[in-house]
Amino acid sequence: QEKVENKTPLFNESLKKFLNTKDGRLVASLLSDFLQFFNLDFTMAVFQPEINTLNGLESRDAVARELGILETEATKGAPLMLELMKRGRHKDRGSSFA
Amino acid sequence: QEKVENKTPLFNESLKKFLNTKDGRLVASLLSDFLQFFNLDFTMAVFQPEINTLNGLESRDAVARELGILETEATKGAPLMLELMKRGRHKDRGSSFA
Repeated sequence: QEKVENKTPLFNESLKKFLNTKDGRLVASLLSDFLQFFNLDFTMAVFQPEINTLNGLESRDAVARELGILETEATKGAPLMLELMKRGRHKDRGSSFA
Repeated sequence: QEKVENKTPLFNESLKKFLNTKDGRLVASLLSDFLQFFNLDFTMAVFQPEINTLNGLESRDAVARELGILETEATKGAPLMLELMKRGRHKDRGSSFA
């Protein structure tokens, strides 16, 4: 009982800090792009209030621009996170076209 | 009325295809890592059934290994997506330590 009142919403604090950084907002925006891309409407409906970001998130176009991703027919066929992952991964596997 | 029965769950099909690729599963696992990192339990509770992946997703450790990310104190303080984004972004801004 006495513990309850002392319980600080730690996750809110760390998330709030994260979303107050430019990179943090971009990451959350990438996540939002994924949910929108696959029409994960139910997840989106919970994600938005749960992250509770007053300023909203960046659009896909803005994120792509910020990350220097030039959208092509190929990149448009997937969430931006895929493109980012392909870039970031070590190039030790030759066969990841698509 | 007649349209309803013809309505195919397009998003499920495209998501299913995506999750059947190795990269797709990694991307979804990165997203799951983000939700877990920030204890976004409500979003997670909707995300898991909505993506409906029978095989489950990769753990953070597995994703880090797969992407060649060596976890340090710094990387452990954020979702893996942040590390990936830092890697993938063009190096035209010098000041993104953290």
